[in-house]
Amino acid sequence: MIETPYLLFLGDAPDQLAAKVAIGIKDWRPENAVGQYRMEGCKADLGLTDMCLTEAKEAGAKTLVIGVANRGGVISQEWKKVLVMALEEGFDLASGLHNLLCDEPDLVAVAEATGRKLHDVRVPSVEYPIANGIKRKGKRCLAVGTDCSVGKMYTAMAMDAEMCERGMKSTFRATGQTGILITGDGVPLDAVIADFMAGSVEWLTPDNDDDHWDLIEGQGSLFHVSYSGVTMALIHGGQPDALILSHEPTRDHMRGLPTYQLPTLEALRDTALGLAKVANPDCQVVGISVNTQHMSEEDATAYLAKVEADMGLPATDPFRFGSGKLVDALAAL
Amino acid sequence: MIETPYLLFLGDAPDQLAAKVAIGIKDWRPENAVGQYRMEGCKADLGLTDMCLTEAKEAGAKTLVIGVANRGGVISQEWKKVLVMALEEGFDLASGLHNLLCDEPDLVAVAEATGRKLHDVRVPSVEYPIANGIKRKGKRCLAVGTDCSVGKMYTAMAMDAEMCERGMKSTFRATGQTGILITGDGVPLDAVIADFMAGSVEWLTPDNDDDHWDLIEGQGSLFHVSYSGVTMALIHGGQPDALILSHEPTRDHMRGLPTYQLPTLEALRDTALGLAKVANPDCQVVGISVNTQHMSEEDATAYLAKVEADMGLPATDPFRFGSGKLVDALAAL
Repeated sequence: MIETPYLLFLGDAPDQLAAKVAIGIKDWRPENAVGQYRMEGCKADLGLTDMCLTEAKEAGAKTLVIGVANRGGVISQEWKKVLVMALEEGFDLASGLHNLLCDEPDLVAVAEATGRKLHDVRVPSVEYPIANGIKRKGKRCLAVGTDCSVGKMYTAMAMDAEMCERGMKSTFRATGQTGILITGDGVPLDAVIADFMAGSVEWLTPDNDDDHWDLIEGQGSLFHVSYSGVTMALIHGGQPDALILSHEPTRDHMRGLPTYQLPTLEALRDTALGLAKVANPDCQVVGISVNTQHMSEEDATAYLAKVEADMGLPATDPFRFGSGKLVDALAAL
Repeated sequence: MIETPYLLFLGDAPDQLAAKVAIGIKDWRPENAVGQYRMEGCKADLGLTDMCLTEAKEAGAKTLVIGVANRGGVISQEWKKVLVMALEEGFDLASGLHNLLCDEPDLVAVAEATGRKLHDVRVPSVEYPIANGIKRKGKRCLAVGTDCSVGKMYTAMAMDAEMCERGMKSTFRATGQTGILITGDGVPLDAVIADFMAGSVEWLTPDNDDDHWDLIEGQGSLFHVSYSGVTMALIHGGQPDALILSHEPTRDHMRGLPTYQLPTLEALRDTALGLAKVANPDCQVVGISVNTQHMSEEDATAYLAKVEADMGLPATDPFRFGSGKLVDALAAL
C-alpha cells in the first residue's frame, strides 16, 4: 500500500503525453494529488500547484510518485538528485518504471538510512496463493477487450466514479502499473508468476458485502496472442458476475500484431462469456464500452446506436458520454 | 541444457511413487539413465544398476539428477553429503525440487570451487521474449485436457517415441519440471512471468523443417480456474496445427477444486479449437487421448469405442494401447 496523498513528479517530461501516469492520478484521484514537481525544461503541466519538496511536505504529501515515463529507460542523475532529496525530506518514493528504484544502490542506501519506502509497482510485493476457485461474496465486474489498450481501465475507473456518486458500494481494483499508482494498491498482474496469476486476482477481490461491486481493471485480450493468458487468469480468478465488452472501432489490426485482425464483438461476447461461466455460471455480459476518441461526435453517436441495436446491449463511451448506462446495467442485475 | 547421461539419485525414497521423476526418465529416455544411486533405507528401485559415484562417472554419467520427491520439502543433511561428493567427483546436479539447489550456500560454494553447474529446473534460466505471433515453419501438436494431470505429458512422450520409430521428424518440447529433467531441456512454464508466457512457448518451438513436428507438453486446462492462463499461453504461443483432447473418465471433479465439474469432450473441443484458431486458423482437433488407468481393459476398450463413435475422432490410451492412431492422424494432416 502506497501512502497518499502524493506529490506528482513530472521531471523533465518532453511533452504532456509523457506524464500519462500523473494525468491518470489527477483525473481519477484528484484528492491524492497535492501538487506537481517540475524540473527545468519540463514540458508537461497538469495545472496543479507547482511545489518544492518542503511546500509539498507542509501540504501533507506523503509519497513522491514518478508520474512520467523517463528517457532511455534509466533514472538520470538529474532525477536522482531530486529523489534523494525527497527521501531526506521524509517522502516515500513510488514508481512504475522499468528501471527499478530498488536497483539503484544510492536510493536504497538513503531510503534505509532515512527509514523511507521505495515502491516499485512493477514488482509484486506479496506471495500470492494458487487460486482455489471458491465462490466469494459480493459482486465483481470485469471489462474484456477485443484488443489491448482499448480503454478497459478507464471504463472501470469511470464506472467506479459514477457508482460512488450514486452512493453505490464499489472499489476499483488495479491490476496494472498505472492503476496501482493511481489508487495506491493492486496487483501488477503482468509481472506475477504464471502459477499464481488467478490466485493473485482472487486475493485482490476478496469476500465483500453482497451489494458491493469490485470493478476489476482488465488486461490484454483473449484474442491477443501475446497476453491472452493474463486475460484468462482475470476471467477465472475474478469470477465476474458482469462482463463489459470493450472495443476501439478504428483499429485495423491487433496492437503490435500487424497480421492479426480484431475479433467481432459477437466473437468476444461468446468466447469470454463461455469461459467466465466456468468460474461463475451466473455471469452475464451487461454492456459495451467503446473508445471513440478517433471518431467525430456524430460518428461516435451513430456507431454506439448501431452497436446497441446489433448487440441488444447498452453501449457508451464512458469517458466521452459518461458511464451511466453501464452502471444502470450493473444496478439492474 | 542439462548434460546427459544421468545418474539417477533415488535418495532414501519412502516408496516407488516418490521416484516419479526417475521413473519418467527411465521410461522415456532410457539412454539417459546410466544407473541409480540409492541411500540406506531407499524403498524405490528402477531395476537399473546400482552405482556409486565413481562407478557412474566411469560409465559416462555427467549429471546427478534428483529423481525423487524429498520429505518435508527440504534437502536433508544426509542427501547433502552425497550431493557435495557428487560435485567433487565432477557431476553437475539437476533438481526439480521446491527447495532450490542454488538456495543452499554450501552446494553453491562447492559448485563454484569445482566449476560444476546446479540446474534448478523450477527456475527459468532464459530471458524470454514477449510473443510476436509470427507464423513459424514446421508443425506443432498440443494436448489439451479436460483437467490437469490427465496424461498430456505421457501422450506427447508416447507420440514422440512412435514417430521416432516410424522415422518421422519430431521433438518432445518440455514445459514442466518432470519433462525438462527427462529430456534435459525446456521451459518451466508455471514459473514464467505472466507477460512472457506465450513468448517462452514461441521460443521453445522455433522455425523448423516443414515436415517436423514439435510435440508440446500441455499444462493445466482451460477449464481449471487455477491454471487456465498457462494453458491459454500454450495454445497461443504454440500455434498448434493439431490438438489432441486428453481426458480421465473416472474423475468426479476438477483436480483440487471439489465444486467444479469436468467439461465434456465436446466443450473442450469447441473451446480449445476456437481459441487456437486465433493463432492458427488451420488448426484441427485430430484425436483423443484417454487415461484409462482406473478402468478394466474391457471397460477401457468399450469407452474408447464409444468416444470414437460420439466424437468422430480416433481415440486411444497411448500408454496402454499405443499412440499409433494419434500419430496416424498427424501423418494424415
